[in-house]
Amino acid sequence: MIPGLQHRKIILASQSPRRKQLFDMMNIPVEVRSFQTDETFPSHLKNEQIVLHLALKKALVAVKDLKESELLVTADTIVLYDEKVLNKPAGKEEAIHMLTMLSGKMHEVFTGVCISSTEKKEVFFDRSEVYFREYGLEEILFYIEHYKPFDKAGSYGIQDWFGLTCIEKINGCFYNVMGLPTRKVYQYLNHF
Amino acid sequence: MIPGLQHRKIILASQSPRRKQLFDMMNIPVEVRSFQTDETFPSHLKNEQIVLHLALKKALVAVKDLKESELLVTADTIVLYDEKVLNKPAGKEEAIHMLTMLSGKMHEVFTGVCISSTEKKEVFFDRSEVYFREYGLEEILFYIEHYKPFDKAGSYGIQDWFGLTCIEKINGCFYNVMGLPTRKVYQYLNHF
Repeated sequence: MIPGLQHRKIILASQSPRRKQLFDMMNIPVEVRSFQTDETFPSHLKNEQIVLHLALKKALVAVKDLKESELLVTADTIVLYDEKVLNKPAGKEEAIHMLTMLSGKMHEVFTGVCISSTEKKEVFFDRSEVYFREYGLEEILFYIEHYKPFDKAGSYGIQDWFGLTCIEKINGCFYNVMGLPTRKVYQYLNHF
Repeated sequence: MIPGLQHRKIILASQSPRRKQLFDMMNIPVEVRSFQTDETFPSHLKNEQIVLHLALKKALVAVKDLKESELLVTADTIVLYDEKVLNKPAGKEEAIHMLTMLSGKMHEVFTGVCISSTEKKEVFFDRSEVYFREYGLEEILFYIEHYKPFDKAGSYGIQDWFGLTCIEKINGCFYNVMGLPTRKVYQYLNHF
């Protein structure tokens, strides 16, 4: 039992194995359901507006199948650098380009989350700063070759070789960078 | 192969399973050796002086068995709050006391590391700030009961239930809080 946590079944509509793992680490059982949503957003949206929009968009699709006894969690994470949104890289060339751009710089990671019942929705976000040391092409190529970070926004994982060896420091929630601001999710679920 | 990393066998003289795990995640093979060192330090030492002293003290014991082809890594982590050093708790009562004290506050985590060959030593440290939300006795008791954090300085693990649900944000290196400032260790090993 988790202190204070509501005893409703939680549905995680996300294909990210990392989000499922974070719920496991919080000791919160979830059922994973998979839905297709296109991840486009209106071009006038900025920063947290983008992830709030996308978390809500995913919720609007997935909530149709929801039962009264269930809570739905949807989320979206983006990497932002120099006012550009970095998505999952299309392939090796784009991953090299992204990581080269981020060397020696700070970038931001935003995750938006929507919690839904059949009655209401709550949306919120978290923002973390990530500071990379300077690294060279040899390290980038080693990483891409061995870790194939093509399913990751910004082309790296904070919890893998690149995160361990290249991050100087972060300012904010670590787990937000992994894809879920766990502390906020826990508190929002507790008070929903 | 790790870019630039020296091809010397690395000896990790630490009983912390988390430090071993972090080397695994960096893809750096290590051999774990176990030594007994008393972890006392002169009372005039403050903050980073304490962990530098203890990392070096551990190295001075473990280096006696070192071969020329090997590098030795020793480390020590402390939690600091209100100028008090929080060690591993002696039992349930002390863990409750520590976690109650840290609720809603910022504390610091220092890790000192010493890398040694038979020829020379390099010592360095990292410092991270951890900001806890306010939490209550119910959550503390749930955590201690289920996770038994008695082998952890400060009575919590940043990578377990408490870290995921109670940390507002960190400022610094996440892995330093786990017990090893991985980015610095990687770079010092590369340039040793």
